[in-house]
Amino acid sequence: MDITPARPHPRLDTYVDRYAARTAGMTASEIRALFAVASRPEVVSLAGGMPNISGLPLDVVGSAISDLIAQQGPIAMQYGSGQGVPELREQITEVMRLEGIEAHPDDVVVTVGSQQAVDLVTRIFIDPGDVVICEAPSYVGALGVFKAYQAEVVHAEMDSDGLVPEALRQAIASVEAAGKTIKFLYTIPNFHNPAGVTLSAARRTEILDICRQHNVLILEDNPYGLLGFDREPIRALRADEAENVIYLGSFSKTFAPGFRVGWALAPHPVREKLVLAQESATLCPPQFSQMAVSAYLSNHDWQGQIKQFREMYRERRDAMIDALDDMMPASCRWNVPDGGFYVWLTLPPGIDAKAMLPRAVTARVAYVPGTAFFADGFGSSSMRLSFCYPTPERIREGVRRLAGVLEAEMELRATFGASAPERGIGPYHGYDAPGTDLS
Amino acid sequence: MDITPARPHPRLDTYVDRYAARTAGMTASEIRALFAVASRPEVVSLAGGMPNISGLPLDVVGSAISDLIAQQGPIAMQYGSGQGVPELREQITEVMRLEGIEAHPDDVVVTVGSQQAVDLVTRIFIDPGDVVICEAPSYVGALGVFKAYQAEVVHAEMDSDGLVPEALRQAIASVEAAGKTIKFLYTIPNFHNPAGVTLSAARRTEILDICRQHNVLILEDNPYGLLGFDREPIRALRADEAENVIYLGSFSKTFAPGFRVGWALAPHPVREKLVLAQESATLCPPQFSQMAVSAYLSNHDWQGQIKQFREMYRERRDAMIDALDDMMPASCRWNVPDGGFYVWLTLPPGIDAKAMLPRAVTARVAYVPGTAFFADGFGSSSMRLSFCYPTPERIREGVRRLAGVLEAEMELRATFGASAPERGIGPYHGYDAPGTDLS
Repeated sequence: MDITPARPHPRLDTYVDRYAARTAGMTASEIRALFAVASRPEVVSLAGGMPNISGLPLDVVGSAISDLIAQQGPIAMQYGSGQGVPELREQITEVMRLEGIEAHPDDVVVTVGSQQAVDLVTRIFIDPGDVVICEAPSYVGALGVFKAYQAEVVHAEMDSDGLVPEALRQAIASVEAAGKTIKFLYTIPNFHNPAGVTLSAARRTEILDICRQHNVLILEDNPYGLLGFDREPIRALRADEAENVIYLGSFSKTFAPGFRVGWALAPHPVREKLVLAQESATLCPPQFSQMAVSAYLSNHDWQGQIKQFREMYRERRDAMIDALDDMMPASCRWNVPDGGFYVWLTLPPGIDAKAMLPRAVTARVAYVPGTAFFADGFGSSSMRLSFCYPTPERIREGVRRLAGVLEAEMELRATFGASAPERGIGPYHGYDAPGTDLS
Repeated sequence: MDITPARPHPRLDTYVDRYAARTAGMTASEIRALFAVASRPEVVSLAGGMPNISGLPLDVVGSAISDLIAQQGPIAMQYGSGQGVPELREQITEVMRLEGIEAHPDDVVVTVGSQQAVDLVTRIFIDPGDVVICEAPSYVGALGVFKAYQAEVVHAEMDSDGLVPEALRQAIASVEAAGKTIKFLYTIPNFHNPAGVTLSAARRTEILDICRQHNVLILEDNPYGLLGFDREPIRALRADEAENVIYLGSFSKTFAPGFRVGWALAPHPVREKLVLAQESATLCPPQFSQMAVSAYLSNHDWQGQIKQFREMYRERRDAMIDALDDMMPASCRWNVPDGGFYVWLTLPPGIDAKAMLPRAVTARVAYVPGTAFFADGFGSSSMRLSFCYPTPERIREGVRRLAGVLEAEMELRATFGASAPERGIGPYHGYDAPGTDLS
């Protein structure tokens, strides 16, 4: 007779009563499992936001880092300042100068990628129930942070010129009328993720004015600003307003993401709080990573490298737009981004991008359904297509597969009068994030 | 006439009404400014917890990282998994095997130093007002995290055998009687920071039993476990209890802190939550750092290196204990740690370590006052002395200076009947952390 005491099944979560309330906002997406499949080599992934860094000069990086270890190894491998390496912060101000920002290195905090900057800013500003205004759609990774800190996200509409000022005014008015507190506007003004659009110059002044009037801080997230295809870097919001803007930057797209070096530029008192938050979160960002990035910037024509990246991404953008023009049903709509990584595509009426995803993955092409980029369940008829990582040939092949899936879907709909039933994926429960936006 | 509109002084915090409530727990210590002074080269700092990594073979590290860039550069510089590099997680299980832990790499989450592991565990378990039981004293950096998440810290006494089981029972009973929720016990069983003591084998079983009975999770923080001077690695709490223990480890003291690579080993459902939290916090820990540490472990006799570290730290421990024996007033008490970085010293009755600190820094020696290691204002008659970073000669000189300051203080006290007044530092307001424990 077996008298072993009953033990819970190892996959059963016996800790479920003990988690913090905020973990309710930290759930794995149902489509996550699908993305594990989508990472197989035979699938063309138009889903992920991974930069293509194959053009980086490994010899330059290798010798810069070898010299770093030989000459400053004991410093690079030691703990450092919670705010980040001073020389790197100086270089960061030079990078930001390309967008018209005049800043002091003292007001820069280095972060573990700009994702951590979003996390730390949210940590110091958001109490549960506070409101963050976001564009509709918005970056999935930021929405995940806001949710984890129990913020309420209110979306404001965009069009081809970016965030619509009147929509922002209405969003602010509706939140104020509800008696809630808006802590900040989270915006990606350049080559938007996922919408691909850029905020026009005229609107920048207007957005700054609206936020100043309503005492709404602006969180300007700008990972793609230097990756414009057809023009010079655009003047940042922060360039015209130092007191009401926290600016976030990153080396993940202009150099390489594997070092996880991003930053926040913040008004001085906010910067002080961010450093305290960073010390609590990590003691200090990785000294070795920071000095490696700094050595790269010192030893290489990094602006020339960015120019090469821009040309490579422009070629891929062209490949995607050409393929969409050639192959997608006429009832689809998409924009032509002039920088960054993403095209936002809207399907014909009645086709659900999320319901279609399992069939697309079966046909060996992946994308991110639009619902991932909304906190409120919208976006089901849209999808984000990334042109950053696959080669132009693979992009064309991916679009071909996608067009085939979509045509089959439209045929089914014409026959049965509704979107085909979902296969292998449960009903919609809100948040669709693939997890890390990297799949 | 000047009609410029009045602008707030740039140092005035105009954001003060907008911060999250948790920022009240994220304050800079008053003694922080003093530590900026203490970092001057003429000051012997017995304050900081920086490891001495001067013995690391830079040539080995350099060539391992050069090979990494040449052979796997595009992977090392790319985004990675939120859970961490699989090969490194495999190696981490080998490191933990030295302490009797049998674990699967699937249950390991790589973090940005083990500080981030404390942050993420706290993030997923603590709601404001939840209780964390900590040893008295406890690690300043962990207390800072608990405070930032608005936890209530309840201390339980230690003696020379570590945490006292009866004190833990009483702490649990008092919290339960108050109707509050204990989320976990935070404990540093080996070569405690700051107390220098180690939990005895007999007590380990008892502590595990108490926590299991009361449904209190154990957060076992073990950065120093492999740095014992006089014995083999000690069996971890986690080695005898997989379901109720989250184990934290770090390469900061056994290799180098500049890569910021630590980890958490957690029961499977908790591990899943930690990965979600990590993705939200950073997308993924730095791939380059992780692969660099992995390459070091693969290419070097890392256990031999740890042996060298142990011998070097033992020599410094001996230098400190000898100097204390030779020079400190007989009315002081301290322990003789058999591993790690720290000696905990208690001053003669009536002498306040914090009040004395400005005078010590003037005499060119620094330490951390005991109050930094308590959430409740205790510890004023104690201090933490670190022997990890200065050379034996500097340690001896530091103790000489400290003994001089203390003798002057005792003389003043004998003359005036009370501790000398503080100079240049405000009144005590609770939390004394020097910020990052690294000064």
